[in-house]
Amino acid sequence: MLVIGEKINATRKAIASALENRDADHIVKTAKEQDAAGATYIDINGGNPREGAEEANMVWLMDLVQAGSELPIAVDTANPDVMRKGLSMAKKKPILNSISLESERLENMLDIVKEFDCMVVALLMSDDGTPCSMEDRVQRAEQLIARITDTGKKLDEIIVDPCFLPVSADAASGRHVIDAIAQIRSKWPEVHIGGGLSNVSFGLPKRKNVNLAALAQCIYAGMDAAITDPCVDGVMATIYAAEAVAGRDEFCMNYVTAMR
Amino acid sequence: MLVIGEKINATRKAIASALENRDADHIVKTAKEQDAAGATYIDINGGNPREGAEEANMVWLMDLVQAGSELPIAVDTANPDVMRKGLSMAKKKPILNSISLESERLENMLDIVKEFDCMVVALLMSDDGTPCSMEDRVQRAEQLIARITDTGKKLDEIIVDPCFLPVSADAASGRHVIDAIAQIRSKWPEVHIGGGLSNVSFGLPKRKNVNLAALAQCIYAGMDAAITDPCVDGVMATIYAAEAVAGRDEFCMNYVTAMR
Repeated sequence: MLVIGEKINATRKAIASALENRDADHIVKTAKEQDAAGATYIDINGGNPREGAEEANMVWLMDLVQAGSELPIAVDTANPDVMRKGLSMAKKKPILNSISLESERLENMLDIVKEFDCMVVALLMSDDGTPCSMEDRVQRAEQLIARITDTGKKLDEIIVDPCFLPVSADAASGRHVIDAIAQIRSKWPEVHIGGGLSNVSFGLPKRKNVNLAALAQCIYAGMDAAITDPCVDGVMATIYAAEAVAGRDEFCMNYVTAMR
Repeated sequence: MLVIGEKINATRKAIASALENRDADHIVKTAKEQDAAGATYIDINGGNPREGAEEANMVWLMDLVQAGSELPIAVDTANPDVMRKGLSMAKKKPILNSISLESERLENMLDIVKEFDCMVVALLMSDDGTPCSMEDRVQRAEQLIARITDTGKKLDEIIVDPCFLPVSADAASGRHVIDAIAQIRSKWPEVHIGGGLSNVSFGLPKRKNVNLAALAQCIYAGMDAAITDPCVDGVMATIYAAEAVAGRDEFCMNYVTAMR
C-alpha cells in the first residue's frame, strides 16, 4: 500500500501559519510524525494565494522535509514551474501530484512527466469537470493511462485517482467510484489506484466513520494507494485490516506486525 | 439493516453467570442496552452444558427479554425442542437461528420452519463442514434456499449466513465470503444476507479493526443483516456509514440521524 501523508499542505491552517513564519520545527515535526505513523511518501503542497510565494515555499519545504525524513516526496502543485522545481530537488524517486485530462494541465504536466524519473498521480478530472459515472471513470482512466505510458512511463508508475465525490450530494457516487476502482483494477492489474478519499464524507457529521468505511470498501475493490493523514486514529489500522480481509496479507503478517 | 444483538448468549461468561444465579436484572439490562444501541432483534441463546437446562433457560429468558424490550427475538439453539418452545413464546415474528444443510439439523428444523410464522437464518454449513470457496457457498445457498422456500417461506424471510471463517488461517477466506455475498445478492435480490461476522478476526490482535473493516466491506457487497454486539463502539456507526457509501441511504438521512 502506498500511503501518501497529506498533512504538509498550505490549505491547512497550521501549515499556512508555519509557512508564513518559516517555522521549520513545525514542518519537520509534521513530516516525522507521518513517517512514524506509517506513511510511505510525504506530500508537499506549498500553494499560497500570494503570487510568487509557492515556488519559494516548495524549495523551503523540499529541503526541510527531506532533511527530517528519509521518505520520498509527492510534489503537489498545479503550477508547472513549481512542479519542475520540486521534482528536481527530490533525493528519491518522487511522485508528481498530479496530472489530469484538463487540457492545459495535461499538456504542461506531460512535458514534465517525460523529463523526470517519477511516479504520476493521474486524476480523472477533465475539461468536463468531475466524472459522473463508473463508465466515465474507466474511459477517462484509459485515455489518461495511454497519454502517460506514451511518454515511456510504466503502468506501475501510475497512480490513478478515481476522483472521490461527496455521497451527501449524490448517494450513488460512492458506488460509482468503488465500482470504477474494481473495473480499473481488473483492466490494468499493474497500475496503482488511490487518492484523496476523504471527499466522500464532505458535508457529513463525524466524517471519520464514513472515511474509514469507504477506505475499507475501496481497498477491497482494489485500491492500493491513499492520500491521507496516517496520524488519524484508525487510518493505518483500517488499511492493514482491510488488506488482510481482502486477501492481500498472507498469514496477516503485516497486520499483526503493525498492531504490535 | 437487520441488527441481531448477540449478547444474550450462554457461552458468554456474564450471561452464564446470570443464568446460574437467575439474575433477571442483568439479562434485562443487557436486552435494553442492545435495544438502545440500535439492535432490531435480540438473540437469545440459553445453551448450557448441563443437560435439560437449556429449555428452562430459554423459557426464563424469553419471558424476561420480552418484558424488558419491545424488540422481536432471534431464538438461537440447535435443539429442536428448545427451538419450538422459544418460537412458541414469541410475541412478535421471531427469527429461527439457525437451520443448515447438516442432514439431521436440516430435517428437524424444516419441520419447525413449516410450523411457525418466522424468519430463518440459513447457515451454509453442511455434512462436509464449512464451505471452502465462493462457488461452494453459492451452491449451498441455492440448495438451502430451495428447501426453505419449499415450506412456503418467502425469500425475504430468509437470512443467508455465508459462514465467516478466520482470515488468519486462510488469507483467501475473506474474499471467498465477500465475493459470495455479492453473488448471492445478485442472484436473490430479496434474501437477507448476514451472520456472525466476527469469526473473520479469530486469532488476530485488536480484532475490532478487522471486524469493522470486514463489516464495511461485506455491506458494500450486499450484506444487510448482522449478528453482532451493537454496543461495541464503532459497530453501529460503521453500519450506517458503510450503507451510506454503498448508496443505500438516500441523502445520508439514516447516517445523519444516527449520528445525532
